[in-house]
Parts: sequence; C-alpha cells; structure tokens
Amino acid sequence: MAHRERLRGIFVPNIVPLDAAGEVNEAELRRYVDWLIDHGVHGLYPNGSTGEFTRFTPGERRKIIEIIADQTAGRVPILAGAAESNVRETLAACEHYHALGVRAVAIVSPFYYRLSPDNVYAYFREIGRNTPVDVTLYNIPMFASPIDVPTVQRLSEECDRIIGIKDSSGDLAQMIRMIAAVRPNRPDFSFLCGWDTVLMPMLLIGCDGGTNASAGVVPEIMQKLYEATVAGCLEEARMLQYKVARAFDAMLFAADFPEGFRAALRLRGIRTGTGRQPLSEKHQAAIRRLEETLREWLEDEGIDCTPAG
Amino acid sequence: MAHRERLRGIFVPNIVPLDAAGEVNEAELRRYVDWLIDHGVHGLYPNGSTGEFTRFTPGERRKIIEIIADQTAGRVPILAGAAESNVRETLAACEHYHALGVRAVAIVSPFYYRLSPDNVYAYFREIGRNTPVDVTLYNIPMFASPIDVPTVQRLSEECDRIIGIKDSSGDLAQMIRMIAAVRPNRPDFSFLCGWDTVLMPMLLIGCDGGTNASAGVVPEIMQKLYEATVAGCLEEARMLQYKVARAFDAMLFAADFPEGFRAALRLRGIRTGTGRQPLSEKHQAAIRRLEETLREWLEDEGIDCTPAG
Amino acid sequence: MAHRERLRGIFVPNIVPLDAAGEVNEAELRRYVDWLIDHGVHGLYPNGSTGEFTRFTPGERRKIIEIIADQTAGRVPILAGAAESNVRETLAACEHYHALGVRAVAIVSPFYYRLSPDNVYAYFREIGRNTPVDVTLYNIPMFASPIDVPTVQRLSEECDRIIGIKDSSGDLAQMIRMIAAVRPNRPDFSFLCGWDTVLMPMLLIGCDGGTNASAGVVPEIMQKLYEATVAGCLEEARMLQYKVARAFDAMLFAADFPEGFRAALRLRGIRTGTGRQPLSEKHQAAIRRLEETLREWLEDEGIDCTPAG
Amino acid sequence: MAHRERLRGIFVPNIVPLDAAGEVNEAELRRYVDWLIDHGVHGLYPNGSTGEFTRFTPGERRKIIEIIADQTAGRVPILAGAAESNVRETLAACEHYHALGVRAVAIVSPFYYRLSPDNVYAYFREIGRNTPVDVTLYNIPMFASPIDVPTVQRLSEECDRIIGIKDSSGDLAQMIRMIAAVRPNRPDFSFLCGWDTVLMPMLLIGCDGGTNASAGVVPEIMQKLYEATVAGCLEEARMLQYKVARAFDAMLFAADFPEGFRAALRLRGIRTGTGRQPLSEKHQAAIRRLEETLREWLEDEGIDCTPAG
Repeated sequence: MAHRERLRGIFVPNIVPLDAAGEVNEAELRRYVDWLIDHGVHGLYPNGSTGEFTRFTPGERRKIIEIIADQTAGRVPILAGAAESNVRETLAACEHYHALGVRAVAIVSPFYYRLSPDNVYAYFREIGRNTPVDVTLYNIPMFASPIDVPTVQRLSEECDRIIGIKDSSGDLAQMIRMIAAVRPNRPDFSFLCGWDTVLMPMLLIGCDGGTNASAGVVPEIMQKLYEATVAGCLEEARMLQYKVARAFDAMLFAADFPEGFRAALRLRGIRTGTGRQPLSEKHQAAIRRLEETLREWLEDEGIDCTPAG
Repeated sequence: MAHRERLRGIFVPNIVPLDAAGEVNEAELRRYVDWLIDHGVHGLYPNGSTGEFTRFTPGERRKIIEIIADQTAGRVPILAGAAESNVRETLAACEHYHALGVRAVAIVSPFYYRLSPDNVYAYFREIGRNTPVDVTLYNIPMFASPIDVPTVQRLSEECDRIIGIKDSSGDLAQMIRMIAAVRPNRPDFSFLCGWDTVLMPMLLIGCDGGTNASAGVVPEIMQKLYEATVAGCLEEARMLQYKVARAFDAMLFAADFPEGFRAALRLRGIRTGTGRQPLSEKHQAAIRRLEETLREWLEDEGIDCTPAG
Repeated sequence: MAHRERLRGIFVPNIVPLDAAGEVNEAELRRYVDWLIDHGVHGLYPNGSTGEFTRFTPGERRKIIEIIADQTAGRVPILAGAAESNVRETLAACEHYHALGVRAVAIVSPFYYRLSPDNVYAYFREIGRNTPVDVTLYNIPMFASPIDVPTVQRLSEECDRIIGIKDSSGDLAQMIRMIAAVRPNRPDFSFLCGWDTVLMPMLLIGCDGGTNASAGVVPEIMQKLYEATVAGCLEEARMLQYKVARAFDAMLFAADFPEGFRAALRLRGIRTGTGRQPLSEKHQAAIRRLEETLREWLEDEGIDCTPAG
Repeated sequence: MAHRERLRGIFVPNIVPLDAAGEVNEAELRRYVDWLIDHGVHGLYPNGSTGEFTRFTPGERRKIIEIIADQTAGRVPILAGAAESNVRETLAACEHYHALGVRAVAIVSPFYYRLSPDNVYAYFREIGRNTPVDVTLYNIPMFASPIDVPTVQRLSEECDRIIGIKDSSGDLAQMIRMIAAVRPNRPDFSFLCGWDTVLMPMLLIGCDGGTNASAGVVPEIMQKLYEATVAGCLEEARMLQYKVARAFDAMLFAADFPEGFRAALRLRGIRTGTGRQPLSEKHQAAIRRLEETLREWLEDEGIDCTPAG
C-alpha cells in the first residue's frame, strides 16, 4: 500500500449533453470526451455535482459512465461518481464501474438528511469494507452532510480502499487540518480541491490536484494553472489563478449551479442542450448576459469562441 | 374551485418496515396501515422524510404507494410523496399515484442543489401545469431548497392544481406571512404544519392540519391534540402540546432522523426492522437509551408498550 | 419567593429621540414617555435593542434611565436595559438603576464574542449573585450569544434574583422547551416574547407578556392584541395578530433595525430626530417608501397620522 | 498618494494584562510591549479582538493606547483599534490616537446590529471623510457586520484615508476577489490577514501581512513564517504554517476566544492576570489541559517555557 501512487492532477467534471428530447446525447458526450482528452486533461470525473447526478435516474447514471469509459478507452483515468440511494445500491454501482475499468469512484456524503459525523463515518466504513474499487470521499458541505477531520482520519486509518478526498468546501484551514491528520499515516492518500477559485493556494499547502468545473470549459487554462503552480512559478500561477477566479465566479454566481458552466460550454462549441431543471425567465436572461461576459473573457484569453448551434 | 374542501387534519407519515434482508416488509407495512387507521388517523402520508423516500429506489417508492393504497382501500385519504429526480420522472409518479386513487401528492422542493426562489417557482410551475392530480408543496428548508412566501403566493395564483403547502420549518412568523399572502385569493388552499412541537399554535394562527411523524407513533395523542385545539379547549390542548413536544424532541434529538421514530414505533409493536443508513455504535447506544425514556413516557400516558420481537 | 408576582403584559421598548445636534432630546423623551403611559402601556423597557443602547456612551445610557424613571414617577413599572462592557460595569448599572426604583433590569447575553453556553451561564451567575435588583435575561441570538434551555434552567434554579427571560428569537419550540424546563420549579419566572409577529401564539402557549417594538409605535393595537389573547377571544386576537405581523414586517424589513420604527414613530408625532448610524441613500429612499405604506396602514386602522415637523 | 507605502508585515494584537483587582496592569503591559519588540515584531495592533476592546470602558481603551504608544516610542508602527459606540465617538478616538502618533487606526464594522452592506458603506464613508489619521477596515464576519467586496471597492475609490483592510474571515476566495477589485486602482491599499492558519497561502495570493493573535504568543515563529513565505522558501514556509495551524487551532478551540491565547501567554512569562469574562469550571479545566499541550509544543519548538507566577 505504501507504494501506491496518489491521484494527481486535474480530474475534469463534465456537463452531460442532452438532446432535444432531454435524453443523454451519446454522440455529443463522446465528442466532448475526445475534446477534453485532446486538450490534455489528466483525468475525467463524471457523475459529480457538475454532472448533475441527482437529476438522472439510476439507469442513466450507469449509462453515462459506460459511454465515457468506452470512449476514453484507457487514455486517461476516470474517477466515477457512484453515489446511489443507499449503501447496497452504491456498492452495486461500485462493482459495475470497477468492471468498466475506472481508476476509482467518488462517493458524496449522504445528502438530504444531514447526518451526524459518526453516521457519516458508519456509512463510508460500510462502503470502504465492501467496495471492489478504490474510493475517494466527496465533501461538499453546502449540498451534503459534512465530512469532518476526525471522520477522514478514522476512515483513512481503517480502510485501505479509501484513498483520497475531494473537498469542495474551499476551506484552506480545513484542508490543512485534514492533511496534517492523515498524511503521516497514509502517504498514498490524495487530497483534491473542488473549489476552482483557490486551486493554487490549495496546491501550495499540499493538495495533489483538483476536480474543477472550470476545467470542463477551459481545460487549457486549468492545466496551465496546475502546471505553473506545481512547478513553483508563483508569479504566473497567481496571474492565472486570478483569471480563473474571475471566470469561475462569473459562471457560479450568474445562475443556479451548474447552468453557468453549461452556457460557457456551449461557447466552446459543445451542444449541451437544455438542462433538466426548468429555468425562470430571470435566470434565462442572466444566462444570456453571462454569455456576453464570457465571450469577451475567452477572446481576451485568445481562445476561439465557436458557439454550438 | 372556490367550493373545494381544504385538506384538514393529521396526515400520518409512516416509517417503512423492512425485513431481515433489508427489503420492504409488505406484510408488516399492511399491518401498520391497518393499525394507524384503527387508531383513527385522518389520512396517510407515505414517501415523505419520515418515510425515507431518498433511501429507496424509484421502483421501491412506487411499490410502497401501491401497497398502502391497496391496503387503505379508500378508508382514509392518501397524500403521496412523489418527488423524483427531475420534472419528467416526478410527473410520471404523479400519474401513477393518481391512477391509484391518492387524494393528492406532496412534492418536496428540489434538493441537493440549493435553488434560488425563482427556479423553485419554475420547477413547481412546470409540475403544476402538467399534473393530473392535486399537488401540495413541501417546504423543509433544513433539507431542501426553501420555498419562500412570494413563491407560494405566485404558485397559488397561477396553478389551480397546487392546493396546499406542507411546511416543516416550524416557523410561525413565516406561516402567518404565507397565510396572509395566499388565503384571500385561494380560500381552498391548505396549510399543513410538519413540526410537531408547534402544532397547537400553528392551528391557532390558521393552519388546517399537520403531517406529523409523532402521529405515526402515538396517533391517539396527536388526534387528541388536534381535536382539543380546533375545539378551542386551550388548557387541554396546551397540556397535550407540551407532552408531544417532550416526546418529539426526545425522538428527534436522540439520533439522526428518523431513527428515534423507528425505535419508538418498535415499542408500539410494529416490526420496523433496521434502517438502511448504517448507524454508528454511539448512535445505537443512544437509541437504546431513548427506548428506556420512551417506554416510561408511554406508560405514563397509559399506553401499552408491546415491543416488536 | 413562591408568592412573587410574575412580570406580565407589554413592556414597551422606546426609540430615544435625538435633537439636531445628535444629543438625547430630553424634553421629547419625557413627552414620549407621557404619550406611551397615556396610551395605557403596562410598562416601559428602555435601553434595549430598539433603544439602541450600543450606540450611546455609558453616561448617556444612565441619563436615559434617569430621565425615564423621573418622568414615569412610578406610574408604570420599568424594565431597564443594564448591559455594560463587563460584569463589574453591568453590576454598577444595576445598582444605579435599582436606586432609581426600576422594577427589574434586562441584561443581554454577552455580544461581539460568541460565548459558549457554559460561559454565558458563568456570566449571568456572577451577575445573579451580586445584583441588588431583579434581573431578566435577554436572549436575542441574531445579535448576541444565544442563551440555551439548560442555561436558563440552571440560572432559574440557582439565582432567585433572576426572575425571567425576554426572548427575541421568535422560536415557539424553544419557548415551549424553556417553559417546560423552568416553570415547575419557578412558578414566579416570567417569559416575555420580543418578536411581535408571534406574540399571540407565544401567549397561548404560556408566555406572560412581551417587549415589543411595535408597542412603541402603536401601543393601542398591541394592548388590544394582548388583552384579546389573554381573554381567549381567539378570532379577534388572530385578526389583530395578522395586522401587527404586517406592520412589524414592514418596519423590520424596510431598513436596518430600528430605522423603520423610528420612521413610524415620527408619523405618530414624536420628534425622533435622525439616528446615529449613517444611512445610505438607498436606505433613506426605502424609509420614505415605508412612510407612505405606514401612513395608509395607520389610517386604515383609524389612527390619526400627525407627522412630527 | 500613489507613492504611499503599503502596511506590510505582522502587526501583533496584544492581550491586555490585568492586575489582581482586574485593572489594566500598566507595568506588565509595558514589559510585554518591550518583549514583543525585542522579538522583532513589525508592528503592534492593540484594541482589537484579541485585545478584548469591548470588555473595556471608553476611558480604558484610550489609556491602553496611551501606554503602548508611550512605551513603543516609535520603535515600531502602531495600528490602533479605534471603534467606539458611534461615528462621533469613533472619530474622537481617531483624533486622540493620531495625536499619539499611531501609524493608522483599525475600525471594526458596526457590530451587535447586523447592518446591510450599504449602511456599512455609509458608516465607513462618514469616518473616511473626517478622520485625521489613516484607517484600515476590519472585517470579522463571525462577530460584526460583514464588509463585502463592493463595499471595500467603493470605499477604496472614494476615501484616500482608507488605506487597507484587515480580514479575519480566513476566506481565500473572498480575499482574491477583494484584491482583484481594489489593487488596480489603489496600489497603496494593504490587505492584512487575521486568520493565522492560512497566513502563508494568503501571502502567496497577494496579501501584505497579517494581524495574528499567535504572534502575540510566539512572535519568533510567526516572523519566520512571514519571512520564509515572502522569500519564496515554500517548503520551509509550509512546514511552519502547519506548526502554526496546530498551535492556533489548539488555542482557538480550547476555550472561548481569547482565553486560549491568554493562557499561552502566561507560559511565555507574561503575567496576564485573569480575564474579565467569568469562566465556567468546564472552561477552566479546558484551559489547564491546553497549558499541558502548549507546554509540550513550545518545548518541541525549542522555546523556553517560563510560566508567569
């Protein structure tokens, strides 16, 4: 175990393109996977929050992983979101994705109900003991039960199969506490940052990579930010981080997540279709304003803007 | 429309009994339905938070309503939780439950993602325009996107099919604002209180009834509380409300919801089985302590305590 | 002690009129005191949140109580806000106000720092042991360290001089818990509701009265609401409660507290002057709109509107 | 203005030593000032949250600055906390501290009442227009009204006298937004981080320094952390940041702030006396446990532990 390689780099969460009937657009999803890999991304991260896993049925969630695994064909590792309605269903998904060859699964803490830390622990322990595939915890306290530091520590000590945590709180102090608590005993445990605005400082205090929605839209910039930071080119990294912060905030606050990212992706030429959550007229107008802002931003960055029809 | 009768009384949310394999225990669920109806409850409310709808698969959720509708056989009205992963799936559930003869469905506001009020509105508007069955909104801000007063008001004005709101915030001021905003235009619109500790004051400021987890455990006491309050027997109602508050708090705070209610139900002789969320050792010990407390409380109330095997 | 009378009725928090130089306007404050007493209020409550105690110097706070005690001359009881920067200063204020003949003091929980419950307890215990005058606790969790139920219970059991709590959380469930925990051992302990929108239901579940900013503006209506509720005239009480809720919300949400109440008071002919917190242009415009709304509301209620020059 | 030097480095917030009677211990305060300066601190920051400004009277707050300014005698710059109960009193304090020769004052956003952003703006604008001395804003959203990004931006554009912000939120994303919004127009505007656990990443994304309670206890370590970070010695800086995080968390979470820092300071030989907020028995026990932890930590760091009598 001690020799195991940590997960490193940017794992890209993907919007799922839908067709006019609201179904998963398999052809466009395959094209999007190729586009991301062609842009040099380190890995893929489907069925996360950006992937709107809760808005698909269990069958659709499996289909999405099947398509992506097939299209990726081993070119980059896949971190597959595997959370289902309970432990048994989640484990069944783990087995299925394992058979498809994913590098690991990411499992969000139980949501809807806010569980106390010791039941969050009990939940992941049960999964950790029975999963056939490596598991990364997924902490996103604004949406799901928080995974606190003692819980990560206990799970890292007791479950070899739990190999990392993806943290979308954006809380640096919390990340420092987690790394301090876990790394001495588990040098193979990965810490991934899911909050794009603070990727650079997170990497500088010890994170191994990120799962960043922005990387689904501007993979070239996120890759450069990651590379500059790990290379210690602080001036360049800071400049890139400020650019990313501006774009991420624009996409995040323009509309309910992840609509801003869907709109941005259309500007890159991916036919995302319309999301499943109905949008108010006010939100639709906000999206149109965002498109103007992003178009300028992309052009400033020298990125070609070729909106999808 | 103006003649339509409001939903009134206590609609009882039910724990779903599971068997040793963790599957829905149909025989015990049927027995529980009969037990509730024999205790005089006004209506049933399956697939809500007490019913742990998020921990079942879509197929299981349908099966639960089918069993309950079949067993109830029209003796009391059913308010069926119908939230699924997106509007289309939710509408399909509405149609299915309508065909089973439920009085109405209850649909929780979108959860996981926290939607802004105008997208909560857009979501329910889409449902309200297409549902074949009456809909009650379900506001539970600690678990799901909040439904604010202007949203309730707009939906009540635009959608005839939306006939009420079940509010589990326990916020009296908010309830007063909602009733003030909606009742003048929609005298048929129901306001149901889902927070057992404040049922009496909620009824006194204008609510029509409640959906109260306590009623699944001690239906006889909740019925008395409701009857005393609407009859204006304030002294008796207050005394009962304080009793309910004590028991509700005990069940609510002993363990993560709804484990306390599951434990209590076992004391009434219903074979609930073990829930699907793994419980820590600490939680299991807390549940055992709760059982002692509740046993005494039930005996004080003159209620027979006949634990399930 | 068991025979002691509880505090009952509405204790009116007062805005402090200021002159053109921003100093306490003694003449107008005396006139306002007379106006309130002439309108039949049960008691006065200076130096609370409505009285903006934090925006005055220690010397000004004393002067305000001196003026009000002198002008009241025993016609109604006074509940004097006595919180100062630390225990010693607070006790000195208690002594001074005691010498002025106030019925009791109200002491807000420590603020700025958020204390843990056991230090809130330690703070009030020190005061309770040394005060020469009866003390009511003041719980306002949106502004100060919360006073939780076990803390109120311990203090009520250990300190005879602590005779009540004024709760401005508006949380009915919490009030029920507090009354259940305290009343059996301390039948003389008062529970006062500081959240005007829910005064009626708070009285119906056992509160003894209120400290309500609305009563400083429309004392005639708040008195009627109190009287109707304690007399069990539920229909009339509910109607009045809805009126109060509408006006209170308007004053509360129009501008940062207590500017809406200051503006309303001017409509009743009291020369409040301008508050000490600078107001933005946006807030000033909001205040002007509020005046229009309130003017209509007062006229609807048959209350003469005679704005101060 | 464009040539003005930014505030840089660590400004040390100081605990105020009290004597057995609870009064400011002037001799020990003078000794503490010398001790800090002898340890090479860049500046002093009295009357902040660590300095418990709210627990002193207005007269005591002035006396504290007078003593510290006199003892410092220009050896290091002083950033003096100047918040009083209202704008007029705060400006009077600004004038007094200006006459004493402080480099700037720090003014916390209005507290107790939670002001909306535009009134926070109005408050600081009034101060910014009338202060004779440079002002740094002080944002500490857990205790006082938050100062948001647009507010900082407007104030920086309109008020030359406002020259920086001390931010104790610990929120990196927010800091990035503030720097992005302000620095282009105000290259002289300082950003100081008040959250010790994240000082290193804050400096790396552009902050100019910090106001860190830990520096009052272990000035030698905080200086090294600052120096290593600005020199780009990332490995050393990270190692020091993790040490500081551990000690800061221990002091912060052991007891209500700033009791853990007071206890730590006693271990360095400063006779702090007992604080003014009464401590529960539970808190006193926690402080004793903390002392053991810190003693070991200091010894591990090679720092002499010479507790005050």
